[in-house]
Amino acid sequence: MEIGIYGLGRFGIYYSGLLSKHFNVKATSRNPERQAPQDVQRVTEDELLDLDVIIFCVAISAFRDLLQRIGPRLKAGTLIMDTCSVKVLPVQWMREHVTDEVDILATHPIFGPDSGRIGVNGLPIILCPERIGAERYEQWRALYASLGLRVLEMSADDHDREAALTQGLTHYLGRVLAELNLEPSPIASVGYQKLLEIIEQTCNDSWQLFSDLQQFNPFTQDMRRALNRSLKDIAQYLDGRELKS
Amino acid sequence: MEIGIYGLGRFGIYYSGLLSKHFNVKATSRNPERQAPQDVQRVTEDELLDLDVIIFCVAISAFRDLLQRIGPRLKAGTLIMDTCSVKVLPVQWMREHVTDEVDILATHPIFGPDSGRIGVNGLPIILCPERIGAERYEQWRALYASLGLRVLEMSADDHDREAALTQGLTHYLGRVLAELNLEPSPIASVGYQKLLEIIEQTCNDSWQLFSDLQQFNPFTQDMRRALNRSLKDIAQYLDGRELKS
Repeated sequence: MEIGIYGLGRFGIYYSGLLSKHFNVKATSRNPERQAPQDVQRVTEDELLDLDVIIFCVAISAFRDLLQRIGPRLKAGTLIMDTCSVKVLPVQWMREHVTDEVDILATHPIFGPDSGRIGVNGLPIILCPERIGAERYEQWRALYASLGLRVLEMSADDHDREAALTQGLTHYLGRVLAELNLEPSPIASVGYQKLLEIIEQTCNDSWQLFSDLQQFNPFTQDMRRALNRSLKDIAQYLDGRELKS
Repeated sequence: MEIGIYGLGRFGIYYSGLLSKHFNVKATSRNPERQAPQDVQRVTEDELLDLDVIIFCVAISAFRDLLQRIGPRLKAGTLIMDTCSVKVLPVQWMREHVTDEVDILATHPIFGPDSGRIGVNGLPIILCPERIGAERYEQWRALYASLGLRVLEMSADDHDREAALTQGLTHYLGRVLAELNLEPSPIASVGYQKLLEIIEQTCNDSWQLFSDLQQFNPFTQDMRRALNRSLKDIAQYLDGRELKS
């Protein structure tokens, strides 16, 4: 099967390379300097938009404008999938900017070049079947499962609520910790080691992705408020030196 | 060799059990309800203070008062070791409250019932040889190494500077995260999984230990200030939505 990947940023390069082991993958990028991985055929935007299955690997903050521009050019019967790390707004944008004759399967592969470095076996991918027939959906569910992925289905709303913590909070703390310039230490406890690993897991991603995760997930503001409240609580307990339990 | 353990709290029970595999261990506790582990002989305080080697496993905040009370009763030639997770103040208290004829080897075993659950091989222990002859020190360095521990020597001051981050920060964030009541999630990323593990690694310890780590390490206040500055920085970068690099 032929799959088109739109976008060759850090994730697009990784994902097109991964999929090229199983599919015939073509890719495009507006940046002429981006190299497609071996086994991925670089094509023009027009050639890509002509394919039956297109997976978007672009920054969340760039996705809306892209859809606005290319949405009207998608042919009937095309299946589009996004890979955004938030789901409510990208789904809304896809519904807004492509015709009813284009199928929409929103996805969130919860892995990338870092966490999937040694393989994707058992790693999760979320599917939000927004507008897609049962048969075509089942085909794609099975295809993702055949890569070894743990396939989970949920609504875009449930996804973002959950991701505000699992992803929004993790990346937020990763960035905060990175600002502290922590160093490996001979007296590192197991817990400190894990702090350093969180920095590693989050700060290789671009600042753009981090900023987008915080801005385009409707539930991250609540998460940040809860975090600040919790920080204040702990500081107050300590000031009072009261035994908490 | 006979070793006395003073204190049968969570760590004292664990540590006396660990040492009893290699030494003849006696233990005392002011709390009559505390049970010594199998192979550890429960003795009275008087009997314990009569031993040649005494390891203190008491809360940092209780250590000074204890030394004040029992320090004068220690006989010449006794070796005392503390196991406090901070070093500058406990060393000061030991020097203050025991005579010059008592040897002092400050230690910090950087593990406990959680991180050492499946064994201590390769886990670190810090030694600060405060007042101890070369031969006796070398004997103890070798004994700890023979348990499989990674033995590190440093000054109390260097220890606390480093521990304010490796331990103070880790426990601080562990408590803050615990307040958020995070749950395991099917869409957990690798990083989020590590956040949950940090809670586990830190919050099984008592609130008393946490509070003591923050209060009795002279460098944790700087750490907390740096953390708050970093949180403020990241929030400001996000408000400005500026690309950080």
